[in-house]
Amino acid sequence: MRFDVLTLFPEIIDSYCSVSIMKRAEEKEVFTVNTINPRDYTENKHKKVDDTPYGGGAGMVLMPQPYVDAYDSVEKLSNSITVMLSPQGEQLNEQVVLDLANYDQIILLCGHYEGFDERIREIIKPREISIGDFVLTGGELPALCLIDAVSRKLEGTLGKIESAHDDSFANGLLEYPQYTKPRNFRGYEVPEVLLNGNHKDINEFRLAKQLERTKQRRPDLYKKYTKK
Amino acid sequence: MRFDVLTLFPEIIDSYCSVSIMKRAEEKEVFTVNTINPRDYTENKHKKVDDTPYGGGAGMVLMPQPYVDAYDSVEKLSNSITVMLSPQGEQLNEQVVLDLANYDQIILLCGHYEGFDERIREIIKPREISIGDFVLTGGELPALCLIDAVSRKLEGTLGKIESAHDDSFANGLLEYPQYTKPRNFRGYEVPEVLLNGNHKDINEFRLAKQLERTKQRRPDLYKKYTKK
Repeated sequence: MRFDVLTLFPEIIDSYCSVSIMKRAEEKEVFTVNTINPRDYTENKHKKVDDTPYGGGAGMVLMPQPYVDAYDSVEKLSNSITVMLSPQGEQLNEQVVLDLANYDQIILLCGHYEGFDERIREIIKPREISIGDFVLTGGELPALCLIDAVSRKLEGTLGKIESAHDDSFANGLLEYPQYTKPRNFRGYEVPEVLLNGNHKDINEFRLAKQLERTKQRRPDLYKKYTKK
Repeated sequence: MRFDVLTLFPEIIDSYCSVSIMKRAEEKEVFTVNTINPRDYTENKHKKVDDTPYGGGAGMVLMPQPYVDAYDSVEKLSNSITVMLSPQGEQLNEQVVLDLANYDQIILLCGHYEGFDERIREIIKPREISIGDFVLTGGELPALCLIDAVSRKLEGTLGKIESAHDDSFANGLLEYPQYTKPRNFRGYEVPEVLLNGNHKDINEFRLAKQLERTKQRRPDLYKKYTKK
């Protein structure tokens, strides 16, 4: 998998990808992350990439020329998709993540300031994806969320492939509660059933907790699950 | 506003806060971001912060001792809230963001690996917040989303305070299309109405576009808006 990220702040992308599990997976060549800065493509003599909006209003708008030219410069693989991070897009969820994991290349368009000149959308025709109904300074954090979530689905990213199977949403339910050492912490005990080594009992306990928690916190997911 | 972030990867938080609009706002002392690493609080002689789950299963679970002791070490202001980033929490949205912006201190608990020992929840009793129905390597990206979204609501973060008023969701609708220079790019023109300087026409055009786009892309938001 190859991620190409168009961003005015490549250091945000680079620094996240240089730590932790992301770094290990990149070193194993499970995926690569490249950044392209539209500022390097502007024909404006002052290196500007944004300007005031036609029709008035606060904030600055990303000009089409640097952005589209930067996009054109990216080598496109045959099994490639282009995604714009935008609060106006479809909601990212595990289904979208699994779908995206089937591509060989994801080109990510990050905005900043008030947003993209509309013609960037009209010319590139990206799939627009939002991580939620809240507004951020730019598309870099959503792009990193997408890279992180998708890369978890690629074989070789996680230490053990099973690790992803117990995640929240993997079976349509929230995760069961987890316990580790010590058995007693400040008077709070690990449930007895987890200590007796009976795997049937443990599985039953965990599923019951998943159902209880999902029903209480996410009736929407619980309803979907029980209808299956 | 003061953000205190408990994380095993403080460099992710620090590097994001050192760029762009976040840096400028921190310099103006609109808010501060501190990081606390539970690894500095572990009593384990090998500096471990996680261990295998009781009852079996893949992955590692964050031990309660380093985490709770690190939390106890954070000075709490009187108007303070503690938030755990977790896929099991309530969904972050603009309403939650506005609510959080009323506090003087937000303590953010980031997990990693399989998750938190359940007793961390039981002892700290945080408000649990999720940024969406997808699974990430850790809570750092969600924490940064929350910091970024909340800090935009604090006076002094944005260049012009009005900038936030035109954002998506600010009036319950998606944003209208924006255009900037040049007037013609690769044959794509800026709509005439935005060039004639008639503010009544411009406002009508923009509202019509907002309604059209919201109806098409987010019927749920459109329904809410038209019921008002």
